[in-house]
Amino acid sequence: MSALTVSDYLLQRLNEIGINHLFGVPGDFNLAFLDHVIAHPRLAWVGCANELNAAYAADGYARSQGAAALLTTFGVGELSAINGTAGSYAEYLPVIHIVGAPSQQAQRRGDLIHHSLGDGDFSHFLRMQREVTVAQASLTADNACAEIDRVITEALTQRRPGYLLLPVDVAGAPAQAITTPLTARHESDAQVRLAFRAAAEKRLAAARSVSLLADFLADRFGVQQQLAHWLEAVPLPHATLLMGKGVLDEQRRGFVGTYAGEGSAGETRQTIEQADLIISVGVRFTDTITVGFSQRIDPERHIDLQPFSATVGGERFAPLAMADAVDELRQLCLRYADRWTLACCDPAPLAPPEQPGLTQNAFWQAMQAFLQPGDLILAEQGTAAFGAAALRLPAGAKMVVQPLWGSIGYTLPAAFGAQTAEPDRRVILLIGDGSAQLTVQELSSMMRDNLKPLIFLLNNEGYTVERAINGAAQRYNDIAAWNWTQLPQALSESCPAQCWRVVESVQLTDVMTLIAEARRLSLVEVMLPRLDMPPLLQQVSASLHQRNSA
Amino acid sequence: MSALTVSDYLLQRLNEIGINHLFGVPGDFNLAFLDHVIAHPRLAWVGCANELNAAYAADGYARSQGAAALLTTFGVGELSAINGTAGSYAEYLPVIHIVGAPSQQAQRRGDLIHHSLGDGDFSHFLRMQREVTVAQASLTADNACAEIDRVITEALTQRRPGYLLLPVDVAGAPAQAITTPLTARHESDAQVRLAFRAAAEKRLAAARSVSLLADFLADRFGVQQQLAHWLEAVPLPHATLLMGKGVLDEQRRGFVGTYAGEGSAGETRQTIEQADLIISVGVRFTDTITVGFSQRIDPERHIDLQPFSATVGGERFAPLAMADAVDELRQLCLRYADRWTLACCDPAPLAPPEQPGLTQNAFWQAMQAFLQPGDLILAEQGTAAFGAAALRLPAGAKMVVQPLWGSIGYTLPAAFGAQTAEPDRRVILLIGDGSAQLTVQELSSMMRDNLKPLIFLLNNEGYTVERAINGAAQRYNDIAAWNWTQLPQALSESCPAQCWRVVESVQLTDVMTLIAEARRLSLVEVMLPRLDMPPLLQQVSASLHQRNSA
Repeated sequence: MSALTVSDYLLQRLNEIGINHLFGVPGDFNLAFLDHVIAHPRLAWVGCANELNAAYAADGYARSQGAAALLTTFGVGELSAINGTAGSYAEYLPVIHIVGAPSQQAQRRGDLIHHSLGDGDFSHFLRMQREVTVAQASLTADNACAEIDRVITEALTQRRPGYLLLPVDVAGAPAQAITTPLTARHESDAQVRLAFRAAAEKRLAAARSVSLLADFLADRFGVQQQLAHWLEAVPLPHATLLMGKGVLDEQRRGFVGTYAGEGSAGETRQTIEQADLIISVGVRFTDTITVGFSQRIDPERHIDLQPFSATVGGERFAPLAMADAVDELRQLCLRYADRWTLACCDPAPLAPPEQPGLTQNAFWQAMQAFLQPGDLILAEQGTAAFGAAALRLPAGAKMVVQPLWGSIGYTLPAAFGAQTAEPDRRVILLIGDGSAQLTVQELSSMMRDNLKPLIFLLNNEGYTVERAINGAAQRYNDIAAWNWTQLPQALSESCPAQCWRVVESVQLTDVMTLIAEARRLSLVEVMLPRLDMPPLLQQVSASLHQRNSA
Repeated sequence: MSALTVSDYLLQRLNEIGINHLFGVPGDFNLAFLDHVIAHPRLAWVGCANELNAAYAADGYARSQGAAALLTTFGVGELSAINGTAGSYAEYLPVIHIVGAPSQQAQRRGDLIHHSLGDGDFSHFLRMQREVTVAQASLTADNACAEIDRVITEALTQRRPGYLLLPVDVAGAPAQAITTPLTARHESDAQVRLAFRAAAEKRLAAARSVSLLADFLADRFGVQQQLAHWLEAVPLPHATLLMGKGVLDEQRRGFVGTYAGEGSAGETRQTIEQADLIISVGVRFTDTITVGFSQRIDPERHIDLQPFSATVGGERFAPLAMADAVDELRQLCLRYADRWTLACCDPAPLAPPEQPGLTQNAFWQAMQAFLQPGDLILAEQGTAAFGAAALRLPAGAKMVVQPLWGSIGYTLPAAFGAQTAEPDRRVILLIGDGSAQLTVQELSSMMRDNLKPLIFLLNNEGYTVERAINGAAQRYNDIAAWNWTQLPQALSESCPAQCWRVVESVQLTDVMTLIAEARRLSLVEVMLPRLDMPPLLQQVSASLHQRNSA
């Protein structure tokens, strides 16, 4: 057996933390590393059409797999991907970004080489990456193993991207053998934990009603199962925000709908906000998912759990790992549960369409009926995500949205990444025509790899989400008109896809019946009125317009 | 007439420096500004399919128009575009990047809003932009006019990108009227200029032969016409490097070919390097265009002109504007010209194909015959650019390549930008299949705007330029196989394009005859052997492989 190299060491570490696929685009500075990737028995190379798409795919993969890895080349490649990395940073996904770099000697000499800015300074991009990653390393033969371990550990701990700059001449340098596994550092101080428990108990013992609100950080910091056990044992009225939709089983008794401040259904809002005590787990009140910060949560009646801290009635406890805090609250709730009644509503079903024809309303009704347990749904920022917010997810369903970073085009490559992680799961992609144009070439990677997502392309002739905010009839919200159903066969020599264009509700339901069990990539172009939008989006966009004009 | 706003002021300034089009993608933070763009009588909005493509289009536009403007939204938009901006920085194109930002109040409060990283810090992206722009401003109602002037002036002076962050609430703030025009600061010190002249004269008077080498900075700093007048008056053997190809008229007597160090034809190299005195204007010896720094230019016999300085036999003169230095040298050459003979060769014609069939060699022979005076040719980094290096350009032809930054996919949107600047010029795009996949959606913008470039899609089944460097048969250099000729009709509802797929030389020349005067967008897919490549690329890639393995 040949000696272990830095490349092999890095690949072993990635594989150890659950990464079986490496997304990216080759470039001459990363080809030496790629030879080791191809040779690796358990880690597959997934070439993407461009680097931003690769970053989005890695982000989507990490949402299923817990972590992901991305490979690009120096300068051109890494900067093309950096918006994707920033999204992973904002929304807490540990994506390890490996960048193939010029040789150390060329960097030291300040050579005038391609993919540099031509000024002899090879640190420009490292400085840029510092803004959107939690740990960075410029690898050398001497520091590589320790630095790889440090960056990956930090990324796992904070659930955010890490950056590894791998010069061509370091890729093949010798490395030591791995002896101890990497672990994230999610530790609580024992005294802090006790103090938190005491403070929480005082509130819980006095509360006549308790509500629970969970959001995306509960998923990212791995307490989803704990929350499920807690709610099984102690029925509480509960909700998620759009960003964390799917973290709680929406079929469980006590689920009251998606919470969005004044964008919530009346009973959802009342049940959550007016409880004597509100427990929130991994929640961030972002503008678009709260209709402009319209949440009304009294700090005095609020226990808030964050990844490394908690507050109880305004008093802060840290360091306290979210998992430990959840565990304490679950135990305390068990003790006091008999004092509380579950006076909660079922979430309101979607309103039936008011008019005939294929409207947003009709589409979401049909989509609600189409969903199956275990579905993985990706809903693009725009009419798709805000429409999907009103869906009641079947058991085991998972939803991927990106409302904080909100980079349009994200979900198409993210669906590629998610389906790569879970090839046998039914993946449903809901995306508008404006968004899909940004990243459309990744459809070809799906077909190349014989993946079978079900894609609903909501064609409303442009950027409807922006028409809602400003310039409903302005030309800048128009886009070029495409023949969407002809795209798959242009993007694949042996097109395995089936395509439909539906203009009536009855067609939509017919096609849905056809593809429900489809084991083929399916593209359904759904023709929708250009100014029609889900009610939540109307509220959010009115709020954005008002705030942007303030 | 309504009062002048900051948006109007900015648009007037852009228009004043020759910008008639604004490329970009709308986003809620830039819609207020876009309303002013749409209302502007002389500046057109050009929506692109995504932001990176928009940045490439702006770069391509600036290469024709002298400057360009790009509009994106905060965070997601600007970061998607930043690789394009970095390319404009590396290769000296003044692209003014305007970014619509959240309101100043939201930024001051640190609101948790979409398109931010969610940490209340709104300066992350400004810090990143500092690495790839020469001037940046965060506009306020008070500083806007002065800061706009400062950033644009600096961008024009240094011929590099500038960055303007425009919060939604500043877009409509009142602005003062424009009184004085903006001008780039290209000034020489009078004493320095005299000293330079004296030093240069000493060398010129003693030289028995003089050669001239020009490169891209001669184009960027506007001395192309001066060089033409100089060479008309004083016949000198001259060449360009690939990066500046087209700066000199390749039909003029004395043109000896494209200089590429040891990658040059023997006589080209000898004529340039072995002159008694070598004058270079705006040259940077980048690795890929010199076959790994193989140029041999004796500093003792070298006068080198850079944008703001010059060296004569190693002695440096600054501040000295390139245009002033060229002027001095032209005058001096006129004085001593009768001492020199123009002992120069014509550049060697392309070698005829050695074997039958459609090879790289046959393709470039056919392309040479296809070129017409005044053509604008964009050649993608890869087999396209290195093949095009050996072409002899007709009079008035211009070539766009990106060998320093070398971001694959660049030329397709750049062709869109160039054709937008010069709709009546014959634009020829030469791009490989691997590269075209990165940015292909901008084909749809070309068709939407009824532009008519002639596109040669060199299909060699993957990244041939990388196969040459490493992993000729490796899977990572493969890409998904597309039906290229079906793409235009998928990307346009009323496809105005004509498409061909050619597999034989005779087909290629037939199609070329057909489209020579085409007033339609034409896509010619040229099937080429996957490992076939132009001779220069073979030399360059061998050098890169060796340097990457060192």
